[in-house]
Amino acid sequence: MDSFRSKKIATNPVTEKLRGGQPCVGSWLTLCSPVAAESMANMGWDWLVVDVQHSPVGFETMLNCFRAIQLGGAVPLARVPWNETIWIQRTLDAGALGLVVPMVNSRADAEATVSNMRYATRGQRSYTTSRVAAYLDADYRTWADDNLAVIVMIETIQAVEQAEAILSVDGVVGCFIGPNDLALSMGITMKETGPGTEHEAAMLHVLEAAKKVGRAAGKHCFTAGEVSMRIGQGFQFLALASDGAFLAKAAQAELNAVDFA
Amino acid sequence: MDSFRSKKIATNPVTEKLRGGQPCVGSWLTLCSPVAAESMANMGWDWLVVDVQHSPVGFETMLNCFRAIQLGGAVPLARVPWNETIWIQRTLDAGALGLVVPMVNSRADAEATVSNMRYATRGQRSYTTSRVAAYLDADYRTWADDNLAVIVMIETIQAVEQAEAILSVDGVVGCFIGPNDLALSMGITMKETGPGTEHEAAMLHVLEAAKKVGRAAGKHCFTAGEVSMRIGQGFQFLALASDGAFLAKAAQAELNAVDFA
Amino acid sequence: MDSFRSKKIATNPVTEKLRGGQPCVGSWLTLCSPVAAESMANMGWDWLVVDVQHSPVGFETMLNCFRAIQLGGAVPLARVPWNETIWIQRTLDAGALGLVVPMVNSRADAEATVSNMRYATRGQRSYTTSRVAAYLDADYRTWADDNLAVIVMIETIQAVEQAEAILSVDGVVGCFIGPNDLALSMGITMKETGPGTEHEAAMLHVLEAAKKVGRAAGKHCFTAGEVSMRIGQGFQFLALASDGAFLAKAAQAELNAVDFA
Amino acid sequence: MDSFRSKKIATNPVTEKLRGGQPCVGSWLTLCSPVAAESMANMGWDWLVVDVQHSPVGFETMLNCFRAIQLGGAVPLARVPWNETIWIQRTLDAGALGLVVPMVNSRADAEATVSNMRYATRGQRSYTTSRVAAYLDADYRTWADDNLAVIVMIETIQAVEQAEAILSVDGVVGCFIGPNDLALSMGITMKETGPGTEHEAAMLHVLEAAKKVGRAAGKHCFTAGEVSMRIGQGFQFLALASDGAFLAKAAQAELNAVDFA
Amino acid sequence: MDSFRSKKIATNPVTEKLRGGQPCVGSWLTLCSPVAAESMANMGWDWLVVDVQHSPVGFETMLNCFRAIQLGGAVPLARVPWNETIWIQRTLDAGALGLVVPMVNSRADAEATVSNMRYATRGQRSYTTSRVAAYLDADYRTWADDNLAVIVMIETIQAVEQAEAILSVDGVVGCFIGPNDLALSMGITMKETGPGTEHEAAMLHVLEAAKKVGRAAGKHCFTAGEVSMRIGQGFQFLALASDGAFLAKAAQAELNAVDFA
Amino acid sequence: MDSFRSKKIATNPVTEKLRGGQPCVGSWLTLCSPVAAESMANMGWDWLVVDVQHSPVGFETMLNCFRAIQLGGAVPLARVPWNETIWIQRTLDAGALGLVVPMVNSRADAEATVSNMRYATRGQRSYTTSRVAAYLDADYRTWADDNLAVIVMIETIQAVEQAEAILSVDGVVGCFIGPNDLALSMGITMKETGPGTEHEAAMLHVLEAAKKVGRAAGKHCFTAGEVSMRIGQGFQFLALASDGAFLAKAAQAELNAVDFA
Ligand SMILES: [Mg+2]
Ligand SMILES: [Mg+2]
Ligand SMILES: [Mg+2]
Ligand SMILES: [Mg+2]
Ligand SMILES: [Mg+2]
Ligand SMILES: [Mg+2]
Repeated sequence: MDSFRSKKIATNPVTEKLRGGQPCVGSWLTLCSPVAAESMANMGWDWLVVDVQHSPVGFETMLNCFRAIQLGGAVPLARVPWNETIWIQRTLDAGALGLVVPMVNSRADAEATVSNMRYATRGQRSYTTSRVAAYLDADYRTWADDNLAVIVMIETIQAVEQAEAILSVDGVVGCFIGPNDLALSMGITMKETGPGTEHEAAMLHVLEAAKKVGRAAGKHCFTAGEVSMRIGQGFQFLALASDGAFLAKAAQAELNAVDFA
Repeated sequence: MDSFRSKKIATNPVTEKLRGGQPCVGSWLTLCSPVAAESMANMGWDWLVVDVQHSPVGFETMLNCFRAIQLGGAVPLARVPWNETIWIQRTLDAGALGLVVPMVNSRADAEATVSNMRYATRGQRSYTTSRVAAYLDADYRTWADDNLAVIVMIETIQAVEQAEAILSVDGVVGCFIGPNDLALSMGITMKETGPGTEHEAAMLHVLEAAKKVGRAAGKHCFTAGEVSMRIGQGFQFLALASDGAFLAKAAQAELNAVDFA
Repeated sequence: MDSFRSKKIATNPVTEKLRGGQPCVGSWLTLCSPVAAESMANMGWDWLVVDVQHSPVGFETMLNCFRAIQLGGAVPLARVPWNETIWIQRTLDAGALGLVVPMVNSRADAEATVSNMRYATRGQRSYTTSRVAAYLDADYRTWADDNLAVIVMIETIQAVEQAEAILSVDGVVGCFIGPNDLALSMGITMKETGPGTEHEAAMLHVLEAAKKVGRAAGKHCFTAGEVSMRIGQGFQFLALASDGAFLAKAAQAELNAVDFA
Repeated sequence: MDSFRSKKIATNPVTEKLRGGQPCVGSWLTLCSPVAAESMANMGWDWLVVDVQHSPVGFETMLNCFRAIQLGGAVPLARVPWNETIWIQRTLDAGALGLVVPMVNSRADAEATVSNMRYATRGQRSYTTSRVAAYLDADYRTWADDNLAVIVMIETIQAVEQAEAILSVDGVVGCFIGPNDLALSMGITMKETGPGTEHEAAMLHVLEAAKKVGRAAGKHCFTAGEVSMRIGQGFQFLALASDGAFLAKAAQAELNAVDFA
Repeated sequence: MDSFRSKKIATNPVTEKLRGGQPCVGSWLTLCSPVAAESMANMGWDWLVVDVQHSPVGFETMLNCFRAIQLGGAVPLARVPWNETIWIQRTLDAGALGLVVPMVNSRADAEATVSNMRYATRGQRSYTTSRVAAYLDADYRTWADDNLAVIVMIETIQAVEQAEAILSVDGVVGCFIGPNDLALSMGITMKETGPGTEHEAAMLHVLEAAKKVGRAAGKHCFTAGEVSMRIGQGFQFLALASDGAFLAKAAQAELNAVDFA
Repeated sequence: MDSFRSKKIATNPVTEKLRGGQPCVGSWLTLCSPVAAESMANMGWDWLVVDVQHSPVGFETMLNCFRAIQLGGAVPLARVPWNETIWIQRTLDAGALGLVVPMVNSRADAEATVSNMRYATRGQRSYTTSRVAAYLDADYRTWADDNLAVIVMIETIQAVEQAEAILSVDGVVGCFIGPNDLALSMGITMKETGPGTEHEAAMLHVLEAAKKVGRAAGKHCFTAGEVSMRIGQGFQFLALASDGAFLAKAAQAELNAVDFA
């Protein structure tokens, strides 16, 4: 019967890989569906992010997705809707093993993020045992300090300029570039991005800053090809599309291929 | 402002196509997600079936999917979990424009199906105005009698043998073959199906019986290729995979294509 | 079949009417019920507001109400619970075509509202495609800038005094007066409101300020009579009671009329 | 503090009134909204029926409505979707103090209804303590036998003919006439009902049969006027419209009364 | 990272223990709370039963409980509300590794139970891949035939008399005695049960019948003491109270122990 | 029938007891289960707190718990997730009769808390009638000012030092000490707390400050013994464990007591 029970979690595999210089690849969950989350979790992704910022997921649905993700063997993460106290603290209590935090534009922003992920005297997170504590091979509070995957989003040109200051904040594990918001903040469209553009240069600048201060850099990609290419460049935290994007692209293509004649 | 409001529905486009000898192509919803349902509905499918039989969808979620489907412009259908009074009547009240009914194995089974979809004196459906009545250009009761897409599943060898008797029941619009259950009922595995097998012969027998009594035949397919082929054979009610299947196949393929080296 | 699909939305009819000097009349949804929302939406209201501030609606229920509203042909709006980043951005992503924003008391407050409704470089809204994008006849980002119905609530005496400064903020489409909160902020009760009072004068001052800077003014009304009267005065964005108020008033009256003798 | 707690329930006021020859007036809940249920419950209705048959309410929502009804001081009842074992037993376990049971067409049907509402050796209800047990001033099992309001629906012409046989079944407290289904079963439309018609005669026959065997008769009414009239005739279990009907009628009338000129 | 993924399930530990003559101890879930389910699952119970018969749990909540149970390392089971086709098949599809089935009173009843748990040609279960398939080290259909824990409830005196006939049905893994319903069916109260009574004799008769045909017997117990005693007698499938009962008993006792003086 | 309706609430019994120098004892709800809430509410607790800060409860579930609590006769309270405008105002609108507010560390913090609980001109709470208004024997706005149980959490060493300034804010009814967060803020572990420690001294300092300014002090306790002891010391607002803690402790103990031999 004991074989039915999982082994206790010693370390957060995402944080471990990012700190060890290895790439890890996950995807985004936007369908607000524990069924979809569980399907994705069983595919072999390193981690899955429940996107609270840009999908209409409710708190209890997010939690049900976390359980589905963990059951399938991926690391449950969430993108909180903003760099905000309540969402950061409650989402961690609900069992996220890390967070992607939007719009971290300055060192002070990053310090606020970390402060909400750490207990006093190192931060302002209010104490409780997280739901995930039951699965750990350690005391949660100590474990959390070492293991939570704190990923700040660098997605404005201001943030790019502050990348080194932001990323060197103690507790930050890595960053994640939001290419769309970055383009908007630069006053350009997505058509003005790609190899050779200032947008690309900005992203590579972030990668360089991250390397310099010993942090991981990441980016959202739409194809396996781009993921592979970015891994080659040294990016480590790679998001590949989302459940909603996979569904939409595949279903539309298959429908279009029907011959009604 | 009036341009914001849709035109009233005159006829059920699915029933109309099936009666008119035309093919119509839809898909299955198994992710229990109104977000996924709405995404699918905007792609151009003729209809979408919320699968209550084999997906863990709750009643209120099914209803939210119906609205999402209708909003996106597809015809909302459901597969009820069994040929059963309560599910058939409540699902129609909730706004399904037709039902796929499992395990209709005899003429009596089909008569029971229809009886639950029609009001007295032609059936035992209890009277109320369906949710969908607000969108019709007619009185619901009259409209329903002519327009509900009543699709019986022929998915046992016994049902195949009774196909003509089943399909000729007044009110049945078409049938849908469940290839897996049919194979099981024949004591064979899916490996023993396909061109030239008894399984294929059984399906073609159903198609022939349907044609003979002026009903549509349908089948679940996994690829656009098979849908096209089945349309060529004369099948009309074609299901192409499901939201869950599209997601699983596409996501797994893309993940596998990542080069971690 | 194509007649089953709605035409794409070219413009937001609410914004269009408000900018064109026309009145538009809607109601409030407080019953947290997609069934009630759909019933209301089919009556001919120009718009319906899901009241997140003062009704106990959850995020996913709000979304299900949005779909019901849109399906019935009204424009889906929401009152966010406060002038706050996360609620404004997430509610727009979920498909609201405009927002009523409480307690906008200064020009800076109004600028914050608009900033959360616009993408960089004009605001701080984080980029994604809104759920409503699928129904538009245009790119969402461009469409949103022109079409979102940004309605700020003027509901303190301080806000009344700043009405012109508030309303002239670029992007603000109109204002909505909260008569109860306004009275409280003036230190008076609702009994001290009405024709000839300072409260009424304050409201007319807002109307005048709105006209001066080319914006629409609105108000919550409890009867058709007041709506008609306010339209005559030049108010344009008129809320008439709520689903909960209609239910309570009508049901109580009918019960009271029963003769048990 | 004890004043904060309600007194324990000694008897079911609905059953008591019906057995005592008194009228009681309630309404129907179709909006699937605990908020609406609570609003209705505080108006003074004797009872409120959550309509599971013809509204899309989920099981947990029904339960939340039961609590809201009880809190507001009305007696929580439900209309189960059919005369069926699982729905009858589970709904009673969830705390309904009585049930309205559709389509009871024969003495055998009524016996089946009662059997599912009574424990062995008098019936086949499986034993548990109902949720409502906590509020009773007695043991639930004994209390239930005496107090559950068992209301069978007589809504086919066959049932009308069997009214005396149906109503005399031990345990049946009263009946409720479904005028729409009755008309359909008679092959007539609602236009062919009313004073002087066979439809009216059928209803009065049920009333007479009920009186003869000492049971209460009831009917769904749309206006206070009809309720008063039916009370005068001797009907006792009177339903007056529904939350959804009150809302729809009042909101539409008020919207229509707006003068846009 | 692979250490984060559980090993695939080779066999159902509950079925294995029951067939191997070993006891296994679980509990009942009646709080309809995935949080409670997860807490219980991490304690070391062999299995946990979501009680759909006598608790007001909705279908999607049951599924969320299944995930929580599995994640915590217990075997997810459910008590279906009755010996009924739809509930048995849907609950297995949702990932239950076995079912407790109420009111199995005859050999025919037990055959119906098993028929709904087995695919053709051995039963009438409709084919799909269960949610739990992703976690198995085998094909689900084959696995299910060998591994589903089919537990029939013997809870009437008629069933006791038929115990051997019921339990010898191929596919039945064990039985579970419902002591309350059994007492009611014998026309006695729970006060007339216990050592030396006919009620106890009936239960021991079931145990004996089970042993004779090589099946496991089980019973609901309220204390660890009774569980231990029943294990000593040879009972194997032992339920110890429920989440709701543990909560109620412990909380009431602790509150009562407060000294307000 | 009128006996079925509760008497209207004249005063908030929690506030009344706290102002009157009496102790009141409640518990915490962390299982996110209206079923558990209702069970607890019927035991005799003075109040129950839905813990939104540290349990994953959604807004609508919280509301369903409020109804269950009120129905069982306890006073419904909530711990909001932070000292934040939206959560404070919406939770009161939903019918909480008081709030426990985390991390009130200064007089300004306490003033912000109270401001969100009072209408203008005394605060910034936006006006509506709370759900609980239907049960009051008074106008809600006036009632609220006198009756809401405003409990600020003192849970950092900074707050302890400011206790008198915090507690003397007009409108604050009492305080609640969070012993874990307090210890963390002092840089110590829970092992360094208890009689004779600085941690205990800090708590007693808060009690003394509360007495001095005529406010109640409270604390979370894990046993009836500690509650009794704290009552003896003069603490008044005593929380005794939680539904989740009662369940976990009792269930684990009972499982451990099983003798499998
Ligand atoms: Mg972004
Ligand atoms: Mg099938
Ligand atoms: Mg206001
Ligand atoms: Mg009827
Ligand atoms: Mg039983
Ligand atoms: Mg704390």
